[in-house]
Amino acid sequence: MPLSSVQTDLAFKALESFAIELPSWGFANTGTRFGKFIQAGAATSTAEKISDAGIVHQVTGCCPSVAVHVLWDFPNGKADVPAVMKVAAEHGVRIGAINPNVFQDQCYKNGSLGNPDAEVRKTALSHILDSVEIQSASGSRDLSLWFADGTNFPGTGSIRARKDWFTEGLKTVHSALSGNQRMLVEYKPFEPAFYHTDIADWGMSYILSKHCGPRAKVLVDTGHHYQAVNIEQIVAWLLSEDMLGGFHFNDRRYADDDLTLGSIDPYQVFRIFYEICYFTWERGAAPDLAYMVDQSHNLKNKIEETIQTACTAQELFLKAALIDFGKLAAHQQKADLIDSEECLREAFFTDVRPLLREWRKSKGIAENPMEAFRASGYMERAEKERGPRNMGAISSYA
Amino acid sequence: MPLSSVQTDLAFKALESFAIELPSWGFANTGTRFGKFIQAGAATSTAEKISDAGIVHQVTGCCPSVAVHVLWDFPNGKADVPAVMKVAAEHGVRIGAINPNVFQDQCYKNGSLGNPDAEVRKTALSHILDSVEIQSASGSRDLSLWFADGTNFPGTGSIRARKDWFTEGLKTVHSALSGNQRMLVEYKPFEPAFYHTDIADWGMSYILSKHCGPRAKVLVDTGHHYQAVNIEQIVAWLLSEDMLGGFHFNDRRYADDDLTLGSIDPYQVFRIFYEICYFTWERGAAPDLAYMVDQSHNLKNKIEETIQTACTAQELFLKAALIDFGKLAAHQQKADLIDSEECLREAFFTDVRPLLREWRKSKGIAENPMEAFRASGYMERAEKERGPRNMGAISSYA
Amino acid sequence: MPLSSVQTDLAFKALESFAIELPSWGFANTGTRFGKFIQAGAATSTAEKISDAGIVHQVTGCCPSVAVHVLWDFPNGKADVPAVMKVAAEHGVRIGAINPNVFQDQCYKNGSLGNPDAEVRKTALSHILDSVEIQSASGSRDLSLWFADGTNFPGTGSIRARKDWFTEGLKTVHSALSGNQRMLVEYKPFEPAFYHTDIADWGMSYILSKHCGPRAKVLVDTGHHYQAVNIEQIVAWLLSEDMLGGFHFNDRRYADDDLTLGSIDPYQVFRIFYEICYFTWERGAAPDLAYMVDQSHNLKNKIEETIQTACTAQELFLKAALIDFGKLAAHQQKADLIDSEECLREAFFTDVRPLLREWRKSKGIAENPMEAFRASGYMERAEKERGPRNMGAISSYA
Amino acid sequence: MPLSSVQTDLAFKALESFAIELPSWGFANTGTRFGKFIQAGAATSTAEKISDAGIVHQVTGCCPSVAVHVLWDFPNGKADVPAVMKVAAEHGVRIGAINPNVFQDQCYKNGSLGNPDAEVRKTALSHILDSVEIQSASGSRDLSLWFADGTNFPGTGSIRARKDWFTEGLKTVHSALSGNQRMLVEYKPFEPAFYHTDIADWGMSYILSKHCGPRAKVLVDTGHHYQAVNIEQIVAWLLSEDMLGGFHFNDRRYADDDLTLGSIDPYQVFRIFYEICYFTWERGAAPDLAYMVDQSHNLKNKIEETIQTACTAQELFLKAALIDFGKLAAHQQKADLIDSEECLREAFFTDVRPLLREWRKSKGIAENPMEAFRASGYMERAEKERGPRNMGAISSYA
Repeated sequence: MPLSSVQTDLAFKALESFAIELPSWGFANTGTRFGKFIQAGAATSTAEKISDAGIVHQVTGCCPSVAVHVLWDFPNGKADVPAVMKVAAEHGVRIGAINPNVFQDQCYKNGSLGNPDAEVRKTALSHILDSVEIQSASGSRDLSLWFADGTNFPGTGSIRARKDWFTEGLKTVHSALSGNQRMLVEYKPFEPAFYHTDIADWGMSYILSKHCGPRAKVLVDTGHHYQAVNIEQIVAWLLSEDMLGGFHFNDRRYADDDLTLGSIDPYQVFRIFYEICYFTWERGAAPDLAYMVDQSHNLKNKIEETIQTACTAQELFLKAALIDFGKLAAHQQKADLIDSEECLREAFFTDVRPLLREWRKSKGIAENPMEAFRASGYMERAEKERGPRNMGAISSYA
Repeated sequence: MPLSSVQTDLAFKALESFAIELPSWGFANTGTRFGKFIQAGAATSTAEKISDAGIVHQVTGCCPSVAVHVLWDFPNGKADVPAVMKVAAEHGVRIGAINPNVFQDQCYKNGSLGNPDAEVRKTALSHILDSVEIQSASGSRDLSLWFADGTNFPGTGSIRARKDWFTEGLKTVHSALSGNQRMLVEYKPFEPAFYHTDIADWGMSYILSKHCGPRAKVLVDTGHHYQAVNIEQIVAWLLSEDMLGGFHFNDRRYADDDLTLGSIDPYQVFRIFYEICYFTWERGAAPDLAYMVDQSHNLKNKIEETIQTACTAQELFLKAALIDFGKLAAHQQKADLIDSEECLREAFFTDVRPLLREWRKSKGIAENPMEAFRASGYMERAEKERGPRNMGAISSYA
Repeated sequence: MPLSSVQTDLAFKALESFAIELPSWGFANTGTRFGKFIQAGAATSTAEKISDAGIVHQVTGCCPSVAVHVLWDFPNGKADVPAVMKVAAEHGVRIGAINPNVFQDQCYKNGSLGNPDAEVRKTALSHILDSVEIQSASGSRDLSLWFADGTNFPGTGSIRARKDWFTEGLKTVHSALSGNQRMLVEYKPFEPAFYHTDIADWGMSYILSKHCGPRAKVLVDTGHHYQAVNIEQIVAWLLSEDMLGGFHFNDRRYADDDLTLGSIDPYQVFRIFYEICYFTWERGAAPDLAYMVDQSHNLKNKIEETIQTACTAQELFLKAALIDFGKLAAHQQKADLIDSEECLREAFFTDVRPLLREWRKSKGIAENPMEAFRASGYMERAEKERGPRNMGAISSYA
Repeated sequence: MPLSSVQTDLAFKALESFAIELPSWGFANTGTRFGKFIQAGAATSTAEKISDAGIVHQVTGCCPSVAVHVLWDFPNGKADVPAVMKVAAEHGVRIGAINPNVFQDQCYKNGSLGNPDAEVRKTALSHILDSVEIQSASGSRDLSLWFADGTNFPGTGSIRARKDWFTEGLKTVHSALSGNQRMLVEYKPFEPAFYHTDIADWGMSYILSKHCGPRAKVLVDTGHHYQAVNIEQIVAWLLSEDMLGGFHFNDRRYADDDLTLGSIDPYQVFRIFYEICYFTWERGAAPDLAYMVDQSHNLKNKIEETIQTACTAQELFLKAALIDFGKLAAHQQKADLIDSEECLREAFFTDVRPLLREWRKSKGIAENPMEAFRASGYMERAEKERGPRNMGAISSYA
């Protein structure tokens, strides 16, 4: 059926407002503890990673920034910022969230900011403060903080002492921020620590953020929850408390599987967007959130899967934006259970892909991003140029 | 091996400090949605319930109070307080936490304090304020607040609007408290609402309590968590924030199964007590917590299962109290993983039952409470006197 | 866009092949252990239940049969068959699967076929054999066997002895079947038994069915799995082994929540249908499966929710039937991961509702079943005629 | 209290019957996908791994065999057998289960025996048949089969085609076995495949084993289950069907965390042993099971954690062996719920360590294995001799 101009206007407005950030590490070879499968064209340098992110933005039009990883993308710290900014500009993207790494060095065996050894805590803090300098130098707004800290066995660490050390460290980080900078505190219930994770759930991120101050917000990774947790409710509560900073998007069946967004449960992703769009509709303005991808594409072609992810995010966001919120709110107030539920189902089961194609045409980009990418010859060139790679150990067992 | 006097002193001190409250509703016939199995001697009146709690306290020496349920134990509200207090005194116990009921009436179909209908919210609030009057009249310290509120399907309610209504209602309750009174805000992730529960996890209880004021604390029901949640970490964080009010104890394999404490995972219960005893050891004083049982004994004899529960709670608390905390803290500080873990395992695998028997002897009660109860003839008398009971519908399907 | 005639033919063929059975108990008031909320127009007699099923079939055209519950629908056993068949015929439906009840009577406290008491096992077996007679008398093909058997605490029953008793009892049931009759063995991991359920998973149903003989097949209830279980894989394996008998459809977030099909995770339901349609495409013939609804509509209007369910089942089945299986199989064989996945996503995100409307028109029924039902005045008449109902106890606690 | 001689006899008999096999890979550095933490004294060669296993057996007396990993321990295949046997003999142990590896090579990206590419399936089968030759040459009884096969996204593989390929491949393996050789088919619900695992649960292992023949049995890894699964029930059913081959022991809170046995839920391990000891008591003979450890000691000292594991296994097995099965069976038959449960609890909460110390004395080994190991100087020598190691890439992200 033909698209009405009202729907088209609403849809275009929604699509203009929606951008999703890509992670530089998503274009490199990664794997599981059992091994990794090497892709001929996978990126091995920061420049290649940014180039890959650039082509995704080029064909989708919705990925203008790239999250960077300090340890891997800024081996020389702040000194690398100009070069990374230059390569980003060349590929039509900008530097996004800054991700410190306080888990890979051998000194972090028993934790970083939660380590019982004060020297290690100092080392970790120092790395994070260096990351804030990179954040400032690159004009990046957000510092993404994920900690692998925790313990593997009951009694092997003092949960409360570690909480105190985290509070102290994070407060120092907060005091180093300025201007519009924010720190986003991520939580995760398990892996790589298996008995307890120091920041295990949104309540812990919330409390630590509150102790730090107004620049600290909670970062929701959709894969970092126990089975069956109602993630959209957490989103709604954090929005209500003005404590939601943004998302790391991915999907999973069981644990932190880092699968393609919406590949396992698209209706759940839609419901997260629904809570955000409902909040936006009520307030008349969108909340200020960082939408970021955090996925590990172990088997699928990395660039193609990223295109899948960006398109899926657009589609599901658009479905949520097209909900008739006025009607919904009226039904909810009267507890018309079926009629209010049908407002969501009607939107979810509508095929929004024609609207997206229209929008892409209006932006001068290809209607089908995946086809456009495949036709570009980019992958073939990458496979040829990036040549034989050093694979290192491919299994944590080897 | 003979018990050292140091160990005995420590153990007796721990046991003197530990009391656990029994729920009046735990002695009545209950069941699942599929039906209930009637026990000949189950209590059918408040007097019988209190009598049953009294005999448990008599044989165990650790259950001096009884949590009461306003709808079932105070059908005439505050007017019933003197009579209930009298019967409690006769049975050697006192009235414990006051439990309002805002889920059973037909008006609560779409919620109580979170209902979109302002009239229903008012009805629920009014019942809770009546409960505060009962609390005051009976000299009870704690108001236990559990809400069945939630929705069964995505979109059928506004999560944020309901949060606001809860905040407003609970603040009013808080303002009605005085003296040493507290309100304990319980959370539960699902059942009887299946899509979203308005107070789903400890983070939500925490935020609502913080919005209310200093008399509001979080109530942890050990069966109200997603699979694999580290409950002892939540306990440690709430202790650290001075926001833990108490517990509803029970055990479960899957959902809120309301099984006998420690019957499925005794080591987890021990770890909860470990966090509390560790906190106590560091501060030099025990936190002020309400330990309460909340179990539904559908198949086992209700009084006998309650005795099992009380004894298990004592044993596991005692094991935790006997941990060598000085040694543990030193090992944790040096990240001696195995040595610190072994401090817990050493305590858990020690057989503390001889110490408990000593303590019981010192209190003039039977060494084996279960045997003492069985020998008392109480159950036989109850079965005879309580006579044929009106079973009503025994299945929610019938 | 206009529907192609090829697509329309394929769709109509799929829709003609798809029927889903409604449960008589789905139209009566039900609830949770905490209580039930009474609906004015809910059915209270077998005739009313069948009438309600009839109107759903009338407006959807896909629910020609009604599963019945022996205890509630045939209080006089086989003698009631003619009357029930007559009322079914009057309402344009027929009797479907026969469901014995061996969980509600007080004698089943410790199990039915798995009870350590031989007398109780005999009672249970006798009821099931009576149910087979009803099955024969009513010309019903399937006997649906769900058992609440299990234990609540470790050690309280012998798991292996109970397995032997189940094997023995089910073999006797099998030997009573004849003609095209089948027995469908359902599994469930917990509730109302909380420590162990005698038939806990599909592997146990499979083994018991194999021990019985060729008329025994596995019944998959979509709500009877642990979190994250890949249900469609179980379906694929059972199809491959010719051991799948049928489904009890519903949805859930956490446990056996008995919510509307597809209301929580529609993509999962689609994947189940995908496995069936893929099998059908390969074999050139559909497997012989019983599609049945088993939901408890505690809050939504029962008839309306049933209409929602039937329509959702049709839509999701149709999406699965429209997958391009030839293309998919080729991509799978070459491990084209993204291209094969997109075959499923393309089908799932296509809006099939226009095709369904066409089909309904071709059948002479209303394009929108919900609107047609609401316009019929049926509910208003039911609410008026069914009058004030005896609610009995509405909470298992009361 | 003094140990009775009856108890001591029973205990010694149980301990004599109990041996647990150590994995060679448990002594090497391993980690998570995020990285691994290197231990100075970790083994880096097969000889070092076997030496480490030898010292554990020396101090515990219950670990006489070592499971080996074909890819890492037999790089030259069968030709390496004599040398490995020799080093084992030198360290007082023998070669245990043979573990093929069909997951690490790049060709296994889309599976091994379940790969859609017939060439890859052939490669995998060939490696497994080579492993059977090693099994024969080393006189090892069991072939342990774990497959990483599966898919990461819906639709990317044909579940039924892969099942058929597995059936075919495993049948070929079975036909290569002779004498008393067995093949143990392991299952795992997820990781490293995240959407579907080809052999996901015990039912699938069972069906494949049945299709193969009498030498195929199911291998239960205690960490390979969904949350809340009743593992001991699976054990009881497999024992009842004579289809249980053995165990991979470890513990976990969430996923396949590979933690120290009993470190998270010791009561569950006890219940597994209870089912085995109960079966033994009824039949008058122990079932023929392989007890094997499969843990990854990422943070704890590897040898010390293995000693912890072996001692814990002995303690929990001994507790189970001391259950009064005659009394238990009588209580179960009468459905004396509390009394039967207390038979288990009585045994679990008894401190069996004095009995273990007696047994060790009787065997001429140290009463405290951990102390004996620490006093031996073994670790210090290992750290010195094994020198600086090549750590390779320590994170799958790097």
